[in-house]
Formats: sequence, structure tokens, C-alpha cells
Amino acid sequence: MKKINTSPISGTQELLPSLQAEFNRLKSGIAEAFHRHGFQNIETPMIERTEVLLAKAGGETEKQIYKVVKTAETADEADQALRFDHTVPLARYTVEHMNELAFPFKVSQIGRNFRGERAQKGRFREFYQCDADIIGWGTLPLAYDAEAIATLGEAIRVLPLPADFYFRVSNRKILTGMLEELNLENLAEEIFGIVDHAEKVTPEATLAALEELGIGSEKIEKLQALMAIRGGRKEISEQLAALGLSGEKFRAGVAELDEAMRLLTEVLGTPNAVADLKIVRGLDYYTGTVFETLVYGYEGIGSICSGGRYENLAGNYSPQSLPGVGGSIGLTRLFYVLQDCGAVKATEMKAVEVCVLPMAPELYGAAAKVAEQLRAQGRSVDLVLSGKRLGDQLRYAAKVAEFALVVGENEVKSGKFGLKNLQTGETTEIELG
Amino acid sequence: MKKINTSPISGTQELLPSLQAEFNRLKSGIAEAFHRHGFQNIETPMIERTEVLLAKAGGETEKQIYKVVKTAETADEADQALRFDHTVPLARYTVEHMNELAFPFKVSQIGRNFRGERAQKGRFREFYQCDADIIGWGTLPLAYDAEAIATLGEAIRVLPLPADFYFRVSNRKILTGMLEELNLENLAEEIFGIVDHAEKVTPEATLAALEELGIGSEKIEKLQALMAIRGGRKEISEQLAALGLSGEKFRAGVAELDEAMRLLTEVLGTPNAVADLKIVRGLDYYTGTVFETLVYGYEGIGSICSGGRYENLAGNYSPQSLPGVGGSIGLTRLFYVLQDCGAVKATEMKAVEVCVLPMAPELYGAAAKVAEQLRAQGRSVDLVLSGKRLGDQLRYAAKVAEFALVVGENEVKSGKFGLKNLQTGETTEIELG
Repeated sequence: MKKINTSPISGTQELLPSLQAEFNRLKSGIAEAFHRHGFQNIETPMIERTEVLLAKAGGETEKQIYKVVKTAETADEADQALRFDHTVPLARYTVEHMNELAFPFKVSQIGRNFRGERAQKGRFREFYQCDADIIGWGTLPLAYDAEAIATLGEAIRVLPLPADFYFRVSNRKILTGMLEELNLENLAEEIFGIVDHAEKVTPEATLAALEELGIGSEKIEKLQALMAIRGGRKEISEQLAALGLSGEKFRAGVAELDEAMRLLTEVLGTPNAVADLKIVRGLDYYTGTVFETLVYGYEGIGSICSGGRYENLAGNYSPQSLPGVGGSIGLTRLFYVLQDCGAVKATEMKAVEVCVLPMAPELYGAAAKVAEQLRAQGRSVDLVLSGKRLGDQLRYAAKVAEFALVVGENEVKSGKFGLKNLQTGETTEIELG
Repeated sequence: MKKINTSPISGTQELLPSLQAEFNRLKSGIAEAFHRHGFQNIETPMIERTEVLLAKAGGETEKQIYKVVKTAETADEADQALRFDHTVPLARYTVEHMNELAFPFKVSQIGRNFRGERAQKGRFREFYQCDADIIGWGTLPLAYDAEAIATLGEAIRVLPLPADFYFRVSNRKILTGMLEELNLENLAEEIFGIVDHAEKVTPEATLAALEELGIGSEKIEKLQALMAIRGGRKEISEQLAALGLSGEKFRAGVAELDEAMRLLTEVLGTPNAVADLKIVRGLDYYTGTVFETLVYGYEGIGSICSGGRYENLAGNYSPQSLPGVGGSIGLTRLFYVLQDCGAVKATEMKAVEVCVLPMAPELYGAAAKVAEQLRAQGRSVDLVLSGKRLGDQLRYAAKVAEFALVVGENEVKSGKFGLKNLQTGETTEIELG
């Protein structure tokens, strides 16, 4: 027999059943949080036309894309690829179905996306993302920026994080406005990249990178001052005023950030949101509000949920203006991190609640009736039909279930059954008809 | 702007939110049924090594496979493709993790698979399958064949079928044994194909196909007699005896079918199971029990859940014998059929329960508190922050939700709110703190 490699391909998640059950529980919890907040769930195909996927993206994305090719010679020549995020398919979906949707369109998407990332620990090529977005028709009030972030916060709350989380919120118009006023617009792309990268390198490296662009020291000081701004509404308001800038875009960004923070913390009551001007989501397509989510004491794992406002979601597909705001929880990577830091433990979980163990094949019918009654009580019940001796059945039960229930002739006659806790060994008597 | 085609690629399912909600409800219902029956859920990657996918398959499957290719020049040269079913990845998974699994391994898989089918109405290239399988270590008692079918029956019961369903059960050993005894083993593949196809063509065409193989009329009569056998345990037992065959394999198949039918109907209490010797699952890898599921009066849509026993699941990956039995509900195609026959109607469903409509932005905080209370009652609540006039908000609410609740100054003062049914116009007063 030719030896075939049976490991899953690198960069994919494959879990044992008990861990899969925990993953599913978290995924469902996020879905329920989105649903409770009135977000309508959709699913788009995993395969899209390449021209749809790359209409806006290009660059890094294009390099990471997985093309899909039929092997048959009769294959149509369509150029297709696997989606790499939920935002591009959402743009296509919204344009395709715009006449049948109600706006603002509050929409959630939970599913797998694909990127040909370099394989390394904690990096995934196939990964779940859980997205919540709100799309407006022509306009979308800023209040929805706060609502999107608050909803994602509720979803994150279902996750067994090792510590509490907090949002870092900013607005890209502030840095854009500053660059306009400092006549640095032509270096905007580079500077956004440097600001975005600043937390990953030393302050000296950031300074050197800015100097390398030929920016004068006075302007660099302003940029450094901006990057250092962080805090609640009142604090950042004073610090932003101290920058002495007055351009229209800058002021619009400051006003939007203040209002988004007010709505988020005071109106919607989201705790632990701080404004932080280092947040710019460098290479993304955001145009206003941007945010990241960190876990206290675990800042090293990076943002577990990020997003922002994009002024024109579907600009590449439709002349209709469709402003949106939303964010995404990277669940596969996060689940990996939760295991790594011990917040999720497979050993504590059993996939099944009760194993029903018939003493002999003649009792299968009685055991099936018992199993049906336990299921009607909402329990997950594995009816063991292996025909093995009771000891073997119990050893099997201990691996998959929390409880075992033996069905023998006496139990069937009396209607009284022992529900044995397989961890503690304790047995509780229950009556079944 | 270059015009980009925003329709989903052909052969994929893309639903509006209200239909998606119904699809999700059915998918969850199936998952819950599997879980209630003690099946542990797993997910495998959608991308697999091509050598894993094609280790056994080949032929038609190979033609339909979607290969996956990274566009970057740095791509590793791994030959990878999208999975086309759940069975092959399950075989790989079971071998890969066999030392960490408990056997019999009762396992469910619900997810999308991919086949490059010719695009046509009701045929999908990307489709959900819901599988339940039981894998034994070395051996697997026949009782699990019945348990797998019974579990799939419970899962099918959650679907809004236009009429009741029934299982057609058979055992491939019966036809195999007959062919051995008739010295037709060398034509087994062709004959299995003809029997499998018999319901799709006229009896004359089946006869002609058998004659074309050069089979004598006496043997053809035996084959036709076998294909006509259908009914409960007693009926088929008599009819099978009347064939006058006595080979070991034939008798083993007859005994297994009788026992599987007994376990299924009398022990596990599954209604509506008939034995039907026309069922052979022609081109599949089954070795014993085989079954299909039809809907009364809708036989034309074909089997909605099929499966069977495969004596050696992982023969291509491991010397360990891993016999299995299981089946699959083709949910995407079934959902399409349910819409087509009117059993699922999008218009009857709203994705959201209550829209909370603040009369003015000053009331956003009060409205958020009201929304939170309704959510705590388990409701799906959309807090409308569009800032539009109440009439516009109500028109939006009517599109997405079942109820609307207006938050004005009076309501906030009194704590009494009107919950308006958007279909009937009826308003119920509710009190919120």
C-alpha cells in the first residue's frame, strides 16, 4: 500500500471532537449575539469570480489568493477563486440583491475564508471569520458605527477570554486631516503604514522611518504627539486641541471620534472603550471610524476583532453609494490562542451527555426507549450497541460521555435506573416510564 | 467603471436573509438531532491533498474535482483540491486521530462540499451535506446500521417535507451473492449499474441492457425477480426464498437485511422502512446495507438521504480495519426542492423579531436600554438608529421584523410600550423597567 500522508494540510484547523464541540459552542454563541442584535445572517459562496475578488484588492491579497480550477477538460474557462474575506462577497451580494434588501442592511456572516499565507505557528490558510456589518443606502448615520462595535463586543463576551477585553477606537480622518494641513498628503500611504506598524517596532525605528521620508522634525513631533493620544473623551479632546490644527477634515475626524465614543460608551453603554490615535488599520479600505480589540495582559496576541467604516463598500460594482461599517472576529486564530493560553481545555469537555448501556442485545429495544426518553429531556444520548461486555462499554462511555446509564432486566422491570457520573463515580437514581 | 458581473457563480446557493434564516434553522435542527443521538461533530478542512481525495475515487469524481492553486510564485507545489464529500476526509481524519478517538466512533459532519457538476437547474457545485457515520475498530455490529439509519430519520424529521418520508433498505451482498451463484461475477459492475439505473428507465430498456451483456433469459428472470422484491420482513423473506438460491454470500445478505429491518423497525421503532431489492447504490463503495430515502408522492425528486455500510473505510490510508456505516442528507439540493414545491416560503419569515424605533436621537440611550431588556428575554432586536422620521422607520421595520416598538418620551416616562404586530397592525402594551 502506498503510504498516504493523512495529516490535514498545514494552515488548517482540525480538532478532536471535544474541542470541536467547544469551537461550535463559541461559534453559535457569536451567531446568537449577532442575531439578538437584529443582524440578518447571510452566506455567500466560497467560490467567486476572480474579477469580483480582485476588483479592489490587488497587491498582497492577489498573491495570497487560491484559484480554483476544474480538472475536467470540459471545464468552463471561468476564472474563479476562493474568497479571502467576507467583505468583498458582501459588497457583491449587496449590489446583486439591493432591490430586495431593507436598508440599513444589518448583516452577519460566519464562515471559512482562505488565504495562501506562509505556513507558520498560529497562521491559518483556512480560517473562520465572524463578521457583522451595517450597510446604508446613500448615507449611514455615525450611530451605526457605535452599534456595530457594541454588537461585536456582545459577541466577544461569549468567548472564554483569559481576561477582559477593550476596544481601541480612532478615526482615519484625523490623521488624513493632519497630513493635509502639514502638506504631507503625498506621503499618506507611507505614513499610514508607519503609524500602523509603530507598536510592532521601537519608537526609534518609527522615528527613523519618518525621517527617512524626509519629513521635518517639527512635523514629526506633531505625528508623534498624535500617536501618543489615548484615553477617554475628555482627555483626548484636550490633547487633540493641543495639536493646534484646524483643517476641516481634521476637525470632522475629531468630531466623529468624539461622537462615536459618546454613543458607544454613554448611549450604548459599552464598557472599556478607549480612543487611541495609533489605530489606523494601515492597509485597509477604511475611511472613518477604525477599531481594534485587545485582551488585557494579552496584548501580544494582537487584535481579536477589528473593523471600521468604509464610505463606499461597492464602488467597484455599482454607481449606488453604499456606505458601511463593520468588523470581524478571527475565530480560528482566536481559538488557537485560547488553547495556547489554557483558556480552552479539551480534557474538560465531553461531546455526549449520557451513554445508555444495554446489558444484552435482548435489551436493545428497552434501551432504545430509555434513550428516547432521555433525548426528549433535551439530553445528548449515545445508545451503545457494540454488544461488548459491560466493563468494555463503561470504558467506552468514560471516553465520550459525562454519564452512563445501564439497562438491565431489573432496571427495566422496576423502571428505576442508575445515572452514573463517570468522573466522580457517583450514581443518582432516576425513574423512567 | 468596468461592469463586473455580481451574480453568484452558477451552481452555488445564495439566499436572501429570510430564506437563509430558514436554511440555518433546518441545518441547526439536523445538527441537534445528530447531537441528541450521541454523534460527535467534527469538521475537516475544505482543502485536502489531491492524493487523499483520489486514493479510492477516480473516474467521475476525478473529472468533477476542483483543484486549488495558489497564484503567488512562492506557492508551494503541493497538489491540493476541494473535498467533494465528507466520507473521504472522514477516512483520513479517523486514521490520523485513531489513537485519540473512542470506537465505535459516532461522528457527524455538516458542511459544504464541492463538485464541478455540469450547471443545470437543481444541480449544485457547492452544496451542504449533513452526514452521520459510525466507525468501528476492526468490527462493527450490524445494530449500528439500524442506529445510523434511525438517527438520519430523526434528522430528516426536522425538515418541512411536503409529505412523510420512507426508507428503502437493501443489502448489496444479496445481489453480489446471486451473481456469484449465477456465474455472473465478471459482469458485476455492469449489472449493479443496470439495477441502480432501473427506476430511471423503462423495464424494456433494463431488459435490453441485460440482454446486451449476453445474459441468458433464465438468469435475467432471476435478476428481474430480485429487483421486484419489496416489502416488510415477512414478505421479502418469502420472496427471497422463492428465488431458490442458497450460496453463502446470498444467505448472509438475506440474514443481514432481515436483521437490519428487525432492528430498525421493531427495536428502534423507525416507522416507514421497507426493504427494496432494487436499491444497490450502484457506483458507490458500499459492501452491505444500503438505503435511500424517498418522500411519498415526491419520488421524482429522488433520494433525499442515502448511505450504507462500507466494510473498510480507510483501506487506502491504513492497514487498520475500520468498518463503517452512515449516510448523508443533501441539504442544499433538498432546500432547493422544498422551495420549488412550496414547502418553504421566504415571504412568511422575518429575520428579526422586534425593531425598536426611537422617536429622536436624544432617546437613543433609552431605546438601547429597552432593546437590551427585550434581548434579555431572548428576542432578536434591531435598534434602529437611522435618524429618519417615524413613518420611514416603520416602513423599514415592516420589511425586516415581526414587531415594532416605538420609544418616545411618554413611553420612557410611563415605562409602558406598544408592541405592534407589523402584519396584523395589532398593538399589545408591555411594561419595561
